[in-house]
Amino acid sequence: MRVIVVGGTGTIGSAVVAALSAHYDVVTVGHKSGAWRVNLASPDSINELFRAVGAFDALVSAAGLAKFGSLDALQDADYQVGLSNKLMGQVNLVRIGRQFVNERGSFTLTSGVLSREPMKGSASISMVNAGLEGFVRAAALELPRGIRINVVSPPWVTETLIARKMDPSPGLPAAAVAQAYLASIEGTATGLTIDPRTLTSQ
Amino acid sequence: MRVIVVGGTGTIGSAVVAALSAHYDVVTVGHKSGAWRVNLASPDSINELFRAVGAFDALVSAAGLAKFGSLDALQDADYQVGLSNKLMGQVNLVRIGRQFVNERGSFTLTSGVLSREPMKGSASISMVNAGLEGFVRAAALELPRGIRINVVSPPWVTETLIARKMDPSPGLPAAAVAQAYLASIEGTATGLTIDPRTLTSQ
Repeated sequence: MRVIVVGGTGTIGSAVVAALSAHYDVVTVGHKSGAWRVNLASPDSINELFRAVGAFDALVSAAGLAKFGSLDALQDADYQVGLSNKLMGQVNLVRIGRQFVNERGSFTLTSGVLSREPMKGSASISMVNAGLEGFVRAAALELPRGIRINVVSPPWVTETLIARKMDPSPGLPAAAVAQAYLASIEGTATGLTIDPRTLTSQ
Repeated sequence: MRVIVVGGTGTIGSAVVAALSAHYDVVTVGHKSGAWRVNLASPDSINELFRAVGAFDALVSAAGLAKFGSLDALQDADYQVGLSNKLMGQVNLVRIGRQFVNERGSFTLTSGVLSREPMKGSASISMVNAGLEGFVRAAALELPRGIRINVVSPPWVTETLIARKMDPSPGLPAAAVAQAYLASIEGTATGLTIDPRTLTSQ
């Protein structure tokens, strides 16, 4: 099975690549590094990626930028980053990638718990994450040829909290988060928002 | 109490205006008709509206365009309509309007049940509606001066189903949907997604 991991050089993505590599043919796609690169904010760049990589069985996206900031601080352009990159970038991976995915293949996107568990400063990110979950619920009804789609909603990742010198105790290790992507790829569910803390759908 | 109803000339909006007018000073804002008009896709137009109307105690938005269509049919520009108009248009009513709203005032936006109950063709609308609900959950944590924000998630409206010659039986009359907006304005809750079928939060 051939699996594309967009954002495969990031904290969660590299844990997904590590978990998949023993069993699958993994194509790791980065933003600024790696053999394969994509700019999620550009549909042309996404199109070029799929044309170059060719057919695949599963796509994981653990990528996408969105801006954290208070309602006072966030500017029009800050909202636009999240809409163009994390939201429509991942939506476009599905819209364009579905022409290249094999029968019974799958897409697994990434939102985040700020969708349902907001905090001060998360207005734009909560909007983007919730929007992704809404898209996935609806798109699952239309994908043909047994193709599935889910979205993983990761909590704070331990490695990220440590890197930012924050309290790591509420975090989940990236390797544990990666198991949610495996569950999406290897399971039969579609349209779900998967919380790695429980590995059940919300 | 002074209440601005954006989209007050539409099916739901006019029912909200009717329900509010007995008790409140209502400013009805339309898109193409009425004394007050706004183009939700334009932050400049929203700014002009608030500068002209001045201070208010509550804002209801029952407005915003988003495109219905299959994954095959929806183009980049179709997604952009929903993002610029129904999603960021309503977000910008809050971002800009909060400079004009009185202490302990409120904002009540409109999403729709396709957020949680998608159907074929709703990928863009489900995304936009869910994004609005995520924004509202997060923005509620930051609004100062006792200002509240909720979003009403209306089901199909009976009058709309009849106008489209569809089976009206799953619909809720616009007058009943309007009660959810009153509950938001007159209650104390904030950050909620209100389903008019139950008038409880989801």
